[in-house]
Amino acid sequence: MPTYRLTIEYDGSKFAGWQVQASARTVQGVLLDALREATGEREIDLQGAGRTDAGVHALAQVASLRCRSTLDLGRLLAALERGLPADLAVLSLTSAPRSFHARHDATARAYRYQLARRRSAFGKRVTWWVGDLDVRRMTTAAGAFVGRHDFAAFAKRAQDAESTLVEVERCEVAEAGSLVAVRLVASHFLWAQVRRMVGALVMVGRGEAKPADVARWLDGTVAPPPLAAPAAGLFLEAVRYPGEPWELAPLAPIGVPS
Amino acid sequence: MPTYRLTIEYDGSKFAGWQVQASARTVQGVLLDALREATGEREIDLQGAGRTDAGVHALAQVASLRCRSTLDLGRLLAALERGLPADLAVLSLTSAPRSFHARHDATARAYRYQLARRRSAFGKRVTWWVGDLDVRRMTTAAGAFVGRHDFAAFAKRAQDAESTLVEVERCEVAEAGSLVAVRLVASHFLWAQVRRMVGALVMVGRGEAKPADVARWLDGTVAPPPLAAPAAGLFLEAVRYPGEPWELAPLAPIGVPS
Repeated sequence: MPTYRLTIEYDGSKFAGWQVQASARTVQGVLLDALREATGEREIDLQGAGRTDAGVHALAQVASLRCRSTLDLGRLLAALERGLPADLAVLSLTSAPRSFHARHDATARAYRYQLARRRSAFGKRVTWWVGDLDVRRMTTAAGAFVGRHDFAAFAKRAQDAESTLVEVERCEVAEAGSLVAVRLVASHFLWAQVRRMVGALVMVGRGEAKPADVARWLDGTVAPPPLAAPAAGLFLEAVRYPGEPWELAPLAPIGVPS
Repeated sequence: MPTYRLTIEYDGSKFAGWQVQASARTVQGVLLDALREATGEREIDLQGAGRTDAGVHALAQVASLRCRSTLDLGRLLAALERGLPADLAVLSLTSAPRSFHARHDATARAYRYQLARRRSAFGKRVTWWVGDLDVRRMTTAAGAFVGRHDFAAFAKRAQDAESTLVEVERCEVAEAGSLVAVRLVASHFLWAQVRRMVGALVMVGRGEAKPADVARWLDGTVAPPPLAAPAAGLFLEAVRYPGEPWELAPLAPIGVPS
């Protein structure tokens, strides 16, 4: 079957996450409705690289689309631009190899999280307002997360038959205007892992935990803080595929004045 | 009476503008309620430098506050931080000379407007999505607006006894990431003037009018295009007072990924 690749941007505030649900507004659901309307196809298979939770945003979610007929991509893109709601945009739409699967083929996901030191009138949907933070302490703690670790203690629920070993490629903390941004890159993340890691980094940044605690949380000596960062500050930033260039944008503030 | 100076940030999306109204949510109204609650004062005089319209945002609106008693500014600021809704923030609160009046004393207002060339899922509240624009043509047209002109043709209604002569100090067009930003500075602006000037610049940027048309619109030879830019893309950026430094931030995108 013809296969296509979409890059998608969304403001997650009013979506109950990516995954289609019978009685909730989801990104996959709204997109499937618009695709059916625009193409007349009934059977469409749409797979997202990251199954983002309710309230989580995406700068460049990737999805694979399979359907029976060959699509006129220019016409379809124009129809989606007209037909999609304001909080969901398709940034690109291209043909893909028939075997392409957005989730299975992805080799890494990059997430970024925005922490606000000061209250901003524009910040509620896109930041977590936590007050002052010690970025140097957070940077030290973030470094301790990098590498291959068992993240069971940072997962909401260990999924059956799924390993809780995750290799974290990058865990960086940077000042971005009035914000503190956290960037996390790994082949995959466990459920709630990113938000619990950010919660732990905030504990360190506030002085409520030490950078050295990270090692103990990971090895199970001490239970990690149960503080999970709220969805609003989290963005799925990019998805990596084999043989493709991977260049992440500078951590400029999104959604708030710098 | 003791006089204070507030710098205020707001997301204008859910406000019916600055000015207090009996049955609508306005910035001045919400702020007065919070100030009365926090201080116990019934008689508070609160004047804003710019009476922004419904939907218009502010990065640094300035207001003067007069009341009978002397205020504990640290305590009041903390109370406002707790008591104000998420879309309204007080950035600073200081004592001011007794004669200070935010509107009468201001010598210039800076506004910026955000035009979007591409649809963004984050853009609806903070940009006007207009498609592609020729920035060079717009820059030429913007230059023709600078100086002292009669802007009657760009005002929504000539207020009684108010001159329609306005000296525009700056009218600049710049690319800011995926956006085109327009910055306007003048001692004051007539009602709807900024939005009509931006509308005219968009006509030029789209090729529907020529940069040379600006002179004819201003001298009344031809009526200017009736295209007023919507409120959502407009920000009151800064207010200038005598003897104070005035440095405008770079035109980085606000509210959308760059």
